[in-house]
Amino acid sequence: MDNPVPDYLAEVAEACASLTSGEPASYIPELASVDPDRYGVAMATIDGALYSVGDARHEFTIQSISKAFVYGLAVRERGLTEVLRKVDVEPSGDPFDELSLEDGTGRPRNPMINAGAITTHALVGGDGVSSAGRFEEIHRLLCDLAGRELSVDEEVWASEMSVSDRNLAIAHLLRSHGIISDSPEEVVSAYVRQCAVLVTAEDLAMMAATLANAGVQPVTGQRIFSGHQVRHLLSVMLTCGMYDSAGDWVSNVGIPAKSGVGGGIIGALPGQVGIATFAPRLDPHGSSVRGIETFERLSHDMGLHLMEVAPPARSVIQRSRVVGEGEEAVRVFELAGTIGFTGAERVVRRLAEEEPVERTIVVDLTHVSSVGGPARHMLLEALRRLRLDGYTVYLIDHDEVLPDPDPGDGQPVEQLQEI
Amino acid sequence: MDNPVPDYLAEVAEACASLTSGEPASYIPELASVDPDRYGVAMATIDGALYSVGDARHEFTIQSISKAFVYGLAVRERGLTEVLRKVDVEPSGDPFDELSLEDGTGRPRNPMINAGAITTHALVGGDGVSSAGRFEEIHRLLCDLAGRELSVDEEVWASEMSVSDRNLAIAHLLRSHGIISDSPEEVVSAYVRQCAVLVTAEDLAMMAATLANAGVQPVTGQRIFSGHQVRHLLSVMLTCGMYDSAGDWVSNVGIPAKSGVGGGIIGALPGQVGIATFAPRLDPHGSSVRGIETFERLSHDMGLHLMEVAPPARSVIQRSRVVGEGEEAVRVFELAGTIGFTGAERVVRRLAEEEPVERTIVVDLTHVSSVGGPARHMLLEALRRLRLDGYTVYLIDHDEVLPDPDPGDGQPVEQLQEI
Amino acid sequence: MDNPVPDYLAEVAEACASLTSGEPASYIPELASVDPDRYGVAMATIDGALYSVGDARHEFTIQSISKAFVYGLAVRERGLTEVLRKVDVEPSGDPFDELSLEDGTGRPRNPMINAGAITTHALVGGDGVSSAGRFEEIHRLLCDLAGRELSVDEEVWASEMSVSDRNLAIAHLLRSHGIISDSPEEVVSAYVRQCAVLVTAEDLAMMAATLANAGVQPVTGQRIFSGHQVRHLLSVMLTCGMYDSAGDWVSNVGIPAKSGVGGGIIGALPGQVGIATFAPRLDPHGSSVRGIETFERLSHDMGLHLMEVAPPARSVIQRSRVVGEGEEAVRVFELAGTIGFTGAERVVRRLAEEEPVERTIVVDLTHVSSVGGPARHMLLEALRRLRLDGYTVYLIDHDEVLPDPDPGDGQPVEQLQEI
Amino acid sequence: MDNPVPDYLAEVAEACASLTSGEPASYIPELASVDPDRYGVAMATIDGALYSVGDARHEFTIQSISKAFVYGLAVRERGLTEVLRKVDVEPSGDPFDELSLEDGTGRPRNPMINAGAITTHALVGGDGVSSAGRFEEIHRLLCDLAGRELSVDEEVWASEMSVSDRNLAIAHLLRSHGIISDSPEEVVSAYVRQCAVLVTAEDLAMMAATLANAGVQPVTGQRIFSGHQVRHLLSVMLTCGMYDSAGDWVSNVGIPAKSGVGGGIIGALPGQVGIATFAPRLDPHGSSVRGIETFERLSHDMGLHLMEVAPPARSVIQRSRVVGEGEEAVRVFELAGTIGFTGAERVVRRLAEEEPVERTIVVDLTHVSSVGGPARHMLLEALRRLRLDGYTVYLIDHDEVLPDPDPGDGQPVEQLQEI
Repeated sequence: MDNPVPDYLAEVAEACASLTSGEPASYIPELASVDPDRYGVAMATIDGALYSVGDARHEFTIQSISKAFVYGLAVRERGLTEVLRKVDVEPSGDPFDELSLEDGTGRPRNPMINAGAITTHALVGGDGVSSAGRFEEIHRLLCDLAGRELSVDEEVWASEMSVSDRNLAIAHLLRSHGIISDSPEEVVSAYVRQCAVLVTAEDLAMMAATLANAGVQPVTGQRIFSGHQVRHLLSVMLTCGMYDSAGDWVSNVGIPAKSGVGGGIIGALPGQVGIATFAPRLDPHGSSVRGIETFERLSHDMGLHLMEVAPPARSVIQRSRVVGEGEEAVRVFELAGTIGFTGAERVVRRLAEEEPVERTIVVDLTHVSSVGGPARHMLLEALRRLRLDGYTVYLIDHDEVLPDPDPGDGQPVEQLQEI
Repeated sequence: MDNPVPDYLAEVAEACASLTSGEPASYIPELASVDPDRYGVAMATIDGALYSVGDARHEFTIQSISKAFVYGLAVRERGLTEVLRKVDVEPSGDPFDELSLEDGTGRPRNPMINAGAITTHALVGGDGVSSAGRFEEIHRLLCDLAGRELSVDEEVWASEMSVSDRNLAIAHLLRSHGIISDSPEEVVSAYVRQCAVLVTAEDLAMMAATLANAGVQPVTGQRIFSGHQVRHLLSVMLTCGMYDSAGDWVSNVGIPAKSGVGGGIIGALPGQVGIATFAPRLDPHGSSVRGIETFERLSHDMGLHLMEVAPPARSVIQRSRVVGEGEEAVRVFELAGTIGFTGAERVVRRLAEEEPVERTIVVDLTHVSSVGGPARHMLLEALRRLRLDGYTVYLIDHDEVLPDPDPGDGQPVEQLQEI
Repeated sequence: MDNPVPDYLAEVAEACASLTSGEPASYIPELASVDPDRYGVAMATIDGALYSVGDARHEFTIQSISKAFVYGLAVRERGLTEVLRKVDVEPSGDPFDELSLEDGTGRPRNPMINAGAITTHALVGGDGVSSAGRFEEIHRLLCDLAGRELSVDEEVWASEMSVSDRNLAIAHLLRSHGIISDSPEEVVSAYVRQCAVLVTAEDLAMMAATLANAGVQPVTGQRIFSGHQVRHLLSVMLTCGMYDSAGDWVSNVGIPAKSGVGGGIIGALPGQVGIATFAPRLDPHGSSVRGIETFERLSHDMGLHLMEVAPPARSVIQRSRVVGEGEEAVRVFELAGTIGFTGAERVVRRLAEEEPVERTIVVDLTHVSSVGGPARHMLLEALRRLRLDGYTVYLIDHDEVLPDPDPGDGQPVEQLQEI
Repeated sequence: MDNPVPDYLAEVAEACASLTSGEPASYIPELASVDPDRYGVAMATIDGALYSVGDARHEFTIQSISKAFVYGLAVRERGLTEVLRKVDVEPSGDPFDELSLEDGTGRPRNPMINAGAITTHALVGGDGVSSAGRFEEIHRLLCDLAGRELSVDEEVWASEMSVSDRNLAIAHLLRSHGIISDSPEEVVSAYVRQCAVLVTAEDLAMMAATLANAGVQPVTGQRIFSGHQVRHLLSVMLTCGMYDSAGDWVSNVGIPAKSGVGGGIIGALPGQVGIATFAPRLDPHGSSVRGIETFERLSHDMGLHLMEVAPPARSVIQRSRVVGEGEEAVRVFELAGTIGFTGAERVVRRLAEEEPVERTIVVDLTHVSSVGGPARHMLLEALRRLRLDGYTVYLIDHDEVLPDPDPGDGQPVEQLQEI
């Protein structure tokens, strides 16, 4: 059987390819010369499957998409508290190259506008790092995310440097406020090099999938960000990634995203997929016209929206049965699915309501794929309370989805192999 | 066994009760007289379970929290396109009572600031509706959401009317731009009455749970909004609900929310829970101090954050086994859990890769709790393709999670009772 | 001989009449119906001569031009300190109907935008004055300034009241900040009536001439404002009178001015003339197109610009001669012209340098037309010092331009009739 | 006799010396080290007399005061039209180092904020001029204005260059908009050198007096700006020179002015005096505390305010008498004072009204000190019309205040020596 997913992508792509409005970025001479009609879409799952259509293997410069990853790197290296002292996380409602510095402090409004991105770039590397060393670290990060070695488009770098007055203005302004302390010329040069790293839509999809996968590269298995760092990064992408249309984007697409004037857009839906598009024609906000349409369709057609409500799950206690009889009778609760707070609440509620007459209770986790942190605490607490009520409790947990099952009373819950 | 969930809530509440900064809203004389130390928390699940601690049954005025629901009502009655012509959905970065009208058109920036809320209030009811009739509709909506009859605090209404110059200014300004056309005095009077509806934290939790439950009231089962309307409403709450700290809120809490100067805050996590807090001391943004802290802790401690990534689920194909032998051998795929796009992708990928030698394939949906719309299409398409490859396919689907299983080739897939 | 001044005005008018761009104010239905091609110019001197051409006797509504005079009235009644607490005097750079309230306090930026004008309107009249009584006072002021009874255009008033949402919004906003305390509806109604007072260009020229004449109506001789009040009022007109083009206006025209959407513009050049134009076609700022051109030409062609530097005056000591001989010889200094600080400085410098050998000094003021306050002090001080140096001093001052000539040493300077 | 003017200045200075609030500019290390209590006042008349008290001969850096003169230089070299394309003339309401660039074009709001001053600096010199050559021209201008050679404080220059990020940011921003085209580093370096030119309060008073004197240096007699250029420059100083308090300054002081963070303030009252103060303690706007107080007192006590209305002059026709009898009778009109448009209007009005029975008219200009351009035309026109009415006309004009008296009818008016 042929996998139908590429066919779905191709269908969406065909519908979007008809859009021919917008022009490639023209303020950077070298960017203006790209073929405006290139178009590629790629999607990577959190377990590393990769789908793509069109020009998804064509290289182009990553540009502002790098801002998201480098912000993550700054947070990883410096900690969120220190980074927040230098750059805020509020949507600015302004275009990407707007100054948008906080009155008085000069703190950029968020890391996705140029001022914020230059700031987070400059936060990378220890004190005293050279700008070359800083770029090296950033380059390493991007390669690790993509899972392959990426090169730099030296022509685009040189071209952008020839029109870098606005970025230099921003960098000088940041230094005047003490937000950065290094040479503005060197910072901008390395920042522009960061923007000139060459990627394909497939690379970007894999990089986005790393975010969707809570920071672990799906193919190489390398942990690049912690889950907590990713949660923060995706939050900032959601509110600030699409510049001055945060409300519109969250409402219409509902996927944390970031666009670049090179024509790329990435989106990462936590626990699900990383998506990337490449199409150089830009709208007046500097985002790819076909890219936006592609995301809207994928969100709408595939239900890939953060707010998409799965049809109410039936109880995660899939079955409750009695094995044996009389004094020997055992109550078996079969749980199923991925259990987070909400699922755990259902389990403990059921256990609290049921009060089985059998004196032995077995919780069967065979069909459970994972148990979140708070859910683990709640399940163990329920087991503890059942014991206090006089029950003898056992687990069936071949896959150790609930490892080290100590409810806190010093007596780990015993395992049964089967019942 | 006692349900431990109330204990968890009580623990969080105890930690937050120590916060004594902030003061009740003082610009409305009647509001200033509330007991500043009241504090209640309530949580309602999408299947109608309700937990609460503290003053969760104490009545207070709903105030700005009503804005979210009335916006939903306007969208339900007029359609999103017409509503967007009158009010935008972008975060304003401004305080709640800021004018924040779009240059030229006078369109309010979003429906959560007063200007936008007065506009959406005025959009309710057919043309020619009286302001009393409009209030009646809104009151009906709020009662339906709460699942009980709600009254109005006439003293608070009168008190707020005595200091309504700012709202009158806004309403006159809106009429000067043609955004509203009715008498500003009547619109403001009914709008202030909407804000004076009395609710408890338990009511609000249930109202929020209705949003978490895709628009269906968990207890009464009444469908109040469509899933699509809820998705849009939650998106707007996420970016605009907490006024000028959207980025901070999404990053720290990650729950679509709305606060009111009466001291309430609601949050709705799609597919999971509705949460409400009541604590009259407000921060300088006009949001409850203890309420915000409560949400931050619940989000952090319970993993109730939109971006919270569940640990990667194992394949939704839980088991693949062969029943029978030789020519009679049948390949059985057991699926499990809630299957959305991502899960369906895994299934079809596995089916595409495996190419079983057995000529009969059975897909067992016994452990599947639901199948989303796009997932349904993908599964059916996979079945169609398997047939094209020469396989005979069957479903086991006692609970009809995949009803009407016609892959589009005119031959519905046959059901087996067991295997 | 025919006076050539009307011919000069006619020449300027003819040049400006060719301008046909712009349209009459359209936001007030009644104003939109005026004949757009009416055009009149009037000029009044500070001694009451009146020149005019074209439709200078056609009545139209005074509109925003009233703001300047009513601001003066508020300052006259309340004192500048109290008025400044309610309205600032900084150019706003905003259009006339912009809100432009100071953050926090709600104080309008200046009295020439609507918010400031409504505020100063409401400051007129003692505490507890009715809105009718307040209008009566304002009407009285305008009649006194014009030197005749003025009526109100009730149609324009009613028409403007039918589209008064923006002004009502402003008034409510002002009351919400405690800037005004009366009923917004009554304040706006009386304010709009103030704007609907009917005047002609000739009236306005005379009203402006009253300001040019330091507050004394040139024809009736009534003192309406003190010199100090006028100085302040003209300063505010200069920086705020032409809305968002203060710099351009001061540079190109250099005459304190105020425009109204009825098509009028007034200008007052201190000590010289009052000018008024009437031409209903307005530019995008709401000022009369022909009116602005007329002012630019008058300023340029007639040298009527505040910064216009008169060719350096020769010494105000026009002649120094000796009368008599030997011991009887007397030194006579003949002064001439209007003597302010600068002139007085020249006189005292000359007296300090000269050290006449004659022991008697006569200062002849016959050709002096006036002596300003500081100049008076300086001249008297010089006379006192001459006495200290041993001179005997006399004045010739038939017109008493230096009345009560006591240098402070207790011995008034004696007068000579002639020499 | 001793000249009392220095005593007046000393009196004012003594009153202001008690002010000890504010601190010297601290953002430039070298400036922070000045003696904060230095205080000098100087005043120069348009005929070159110079008064001063206190530290008026102490050298300090000119800083932003140079902006006014360099703007004049740019206008002189490029013409106003070309300069306006690069920098506007509207008050910004912003602090001195605010960016305040026009949306879209990047044009600075006015030449008195840093962005505008850097722009006008860069406009000086022909195309291709080196930055050293540009500084040389500017230095020459400042020396010519002061009437002596001025040096540069190299320590202050180096100190300011070490904290020049904000100015570099502005310059890069300007180049990104195409407002300047030279190297931002070189432009800023030369601009900072312009600010580091050393002057004394006496120098500045003389420089200001050059503006008061319509562009002619009072002592050297060198014409530095045309009268038209000065009129424009003074207008811009009036509305933009004192940063964000234009309205307040015009109302309270009414003298075109410019302040610098070095502690200096200049003011120029057209046709009267140039004033300068030096006192390093600055208010939060960056203007000298004692300097502002000094200007307010001088304006108030000496009547040195643009809007100060001289007491209405008596008719400039000082005397009308008849000489001779019968057919030989001659009507003599004696004019007096400085005759501008207003004075000329009075003369021609009187001539038009009087219709003397004598057939010969003599206009005696002996007591007239000057006749402005438009006044000249009006007087000659009046003489022409008198001739048309049949009169024979003569002038007495020993000082040639009305040179080349040809009324346009081809017959120059004849002169009489006396009558």
